[in-house]
Amino acid sequence: MVEQGLEVFENIEPIDGGVTAAKGFQASSVAAGIKYKGREDMALVYSEYPCTLGATFTQNVFAAAPVLYDREILKNGNPIHAVVLNTGIANAGTGLRGKETNLFMAAEMARELGVKPDEVLTCSTGVIGFQLSEEPIYEGVKKLKERLNDSRENAFKAAMAIMTTDTVQKEAACSFTVDGKTVTVGGMTKGSGMIHPDMATMLSVTTTDAQIDQYVLQELVKESVDDSFNMISVDRDTSTNDTYIVMANGRSGVKIERDTKAYELFREALRYVCITLAKKMAADGEGATRMLEVIVTGAKTHEDARKLARSVTASNLVKAMVYGADANSGRILDALGYAGVDFDPDVVDVTFLHEDDMMLIVQDGVVMKIDEDKATEWMKQPVVTFLCELKQGREGATAWGCDLTHDYVNINGDYRS
Amino acid sequence: MVEQGLEVFENIEPIDGGVTAAKGFQASSVAAGIKYKGREDMALVYSEYPCTLGATFTQNVFAAAPVLYDREILKNGNPIHAVVLNTGIANAGTGLRGKETNLFMAAEMARELGVKPDEVLTCSTGVIGFQLSEEPIYEGVKKLKERLNDSRENAFKAAMAIMTTDTVQKEAACSFTVDGKTVTVGGMTKGSGMIHPDMATMLSVTTTDAQIDQYVLQELVKESVDDSFNMISVDRDTSTNDTYIVMANGRSGVKIERDTKAYELFREALRYVCITLAKKMAADGEGATRMLEVIVTGAKTHEDARKLARSVTASNLVKAMVYGADANSGRILDALGYAGVDFDPDVVDVTFLHEDDMMLIVQDGVVMKIDEDKATEWMKQPVVTFLCELKQGREGATAWGCDLTHDYVNINGDYRS
Repeated sequence: MVEQGLEVFENIEPIDGGVTAAKGFQASSVAAGIKYKGREDMALVYSEYPCTLGATFTQNVFAAAPVLYDREILKNGNPIHAVVLNTGIANAGTGLRGKETNLFMAAEMARELGVKPDEVLTCSTGVIGFQLSEEPIYEGVKKLKERLNDSRENAFKAAMAIMTTDTVQKEAACSFTVDGKTVTVGGMTKGSGMIHPDMATMLSVTTTDAQIDQYVLQELVKESVDDSFNMISVDRDTSTNDTYIVMANGRSGVKIERDTKAYELFREALRYVCITLAKKMAADGEGATRMLEVIVTGAKTHEDARKLARSVTASNLVKAMVYGADANSGRILDALGYAGVDFDPDVVDVTFLHEDDMMLIVQDGVVMKIDEDKATEWMKQPVVTFLCELKQGREGATAWGCDLTHDYVNINGDYRS
Repeated sequence: MVEQGLEVFENIEPIDGGVTAAKGFQASSVAAGIKYKGREDMALVYSEYPCTLGATFTQNVFAAAPVLYDREILKNGNPIHAVVLNTGIANAGTGLRGKETNLFMAAEMARELGVKPDEVLTCSTGVIGFQLSEEPIYEGVKKLKERLNDSRENAFKAAMAIMTTDTVQKEAACSFTVDGKTVTVGGMTKGSGMIHPDMATMLSVTTTDAQIDQYVLQELVKESVDDSFNMISVDRDTSTNDTYIVMANGRSGVKIERDTKAYELFREALRYVCITLAKKMAADGEGATRMLEVIVTGAKTHEDARKLARSVTASNLVKAMVYGADANSGRILDALGYAGVDFDPDVVDVTFLHEDDMMLIVQDGVVMKIDEDKATEWMKQPVVTFLCELKQGREGATAWGCDLTHDYVNINGDYRS
């Protein structure tokens, strides 16, 4: 059993692995020299068997060329075979030039793989303001094809290749069994706040050997993303390139249909992978020294709970207080108070959770006298967790963030380099 | 003529002064010893003649006792005579104790002034988590009464007394003439981000000798606040004590009624005072080294323009970039893109304004190659101004903010002291 915030995972088995954990998926990476030398900067995730696609994208008005392209494929609903990703220089353009370069990357990769261009999705991240040129991509896609295999190592290296200011590669995988058959879900992600120096932030690919129709998958993807990637905040700045893609190739032989046991298990597995990846992103936020976890219970609606939890993790004052290891509960109340949710302030409790111990720091809306030394000690741990009980209803949500540090200012106040 | 963002003030005369600039207003301040010794920490603004009240307050669910009390008086609509303010320890409580202390402060001040308790408004700011005690207030209100006068010096000292982490006292005043009579509007404000270490942020009092009905005044106050105090952002954290109060005692003999020249002039004067005070707050944001001004034009609605301008000034990435003096226009586009406003990204222009010079940095949604050295030089000025042209309609707005600096993290990451 794994617990993450309010979420309890008791029917899935966490396993080691990433995008090649599920049957029939291969990965590769290459140092194409897009911006820096000697650093892998392109990655490929591929399935010989056609995949159902589920995906969510940035809501930013300035959606980048790869997002516009992928959205179109999702809308068309055709099966896909691959996702090709690049780092170094982001294709963040919304103009003609960005669209052309993106089509070039998709088409060249498709040609190498022997599939159609609209069976290859694209993702792009890195510095903006530089032109992503076609030559390194042309060479890169060839090597990506040559190096494809289903090894653990290739998945790991693909997760490394998509990093930008990330300090660690981020993967998660799990499996479950139904009718004697094993279904696996595995993924990788990158993102560490808005990436130095700019815009492109979260790219994430999940693969699964479940067999699932697009409309069922898409519904589950949206729900999982809302409670995972959409619940983390490093700096409130959403990017133009944010992309989350799920590929399902059906090789497990298990069909996921609504109102079945398999559906519930798959839902849990997808949520586990999404939440685990999202938490890794929050913990690796730009300049972060510790992770902040905020659990809200007793809200009238799930949306209320999500807003309240996110308002606290996104508050600069709360984030700075976590950095300073000062359990100043007034700032938490303040951030709850301006979340745009209507509730009775005079019944709110806030509890500081630490391993199996806890400390009531706000009772019925009033800041309590607490053991400051103990609280400071708890605040210095890698994960700082606050439980906010609204007592207005039965809905809850968990949000994750990180502290606001001098390094965040260093990273983002620096000149482009 | 004075220009501030999109606002042009051509019919009013900026003058030196604050809350005693208008006829019939007196002020005083005192070192009551609420928390620190030898620092003035209470202030009083008083008019012997009864005043019409206009006011706006924090939208935070956890509104503090003084806000709850003042709101009630505004609702009742009775004339008022005074505002008493304290710093040092904030009465940020929502519970019984906070309400009692607040009533004590209002009632004692009223007794000294020989008016009714509900003719005295209260404001409170400072450290939270400590109990505001009644003894210093009891002594303080006596001295406030004794020291009352209408001198320039007393207004200045009152503006000093309400400072917390502010580094400069903030006042503004102006006058206009109508039918040979002079009307004066003057005010003071405090606020520098959420105040060290906590919550209480903006308190502001404006006085005027205009004669005006409450419903007319209240309408103008709301409009002015929306385009001034509500357009500044230091850290997106709104407080539990935010209060803006206007007192109008009618001593100029000029009646302000809708659809008259006097109304237009008064509106301009009130906007001038509000915007000038708001800009002073933005420039004095916690840890700030320079002010950021963002002008949006060509939006479909005024609300759209306000959202877009605020989204840019509130972005941590834009704020860190201003600190780093890096004119990275991708971050501006990004913040426009997630403002929650629908617009065509492919026609947006962004221009960097500097004195009488300008530099187009985004044309039709595409980041331009610019003279980086010149841009860096411009970025190092005390005020950095970007004009964002949406080309979707005829509405505009201006927002003000400041850079995100190491000092902000120092101030807010520190232990309570």
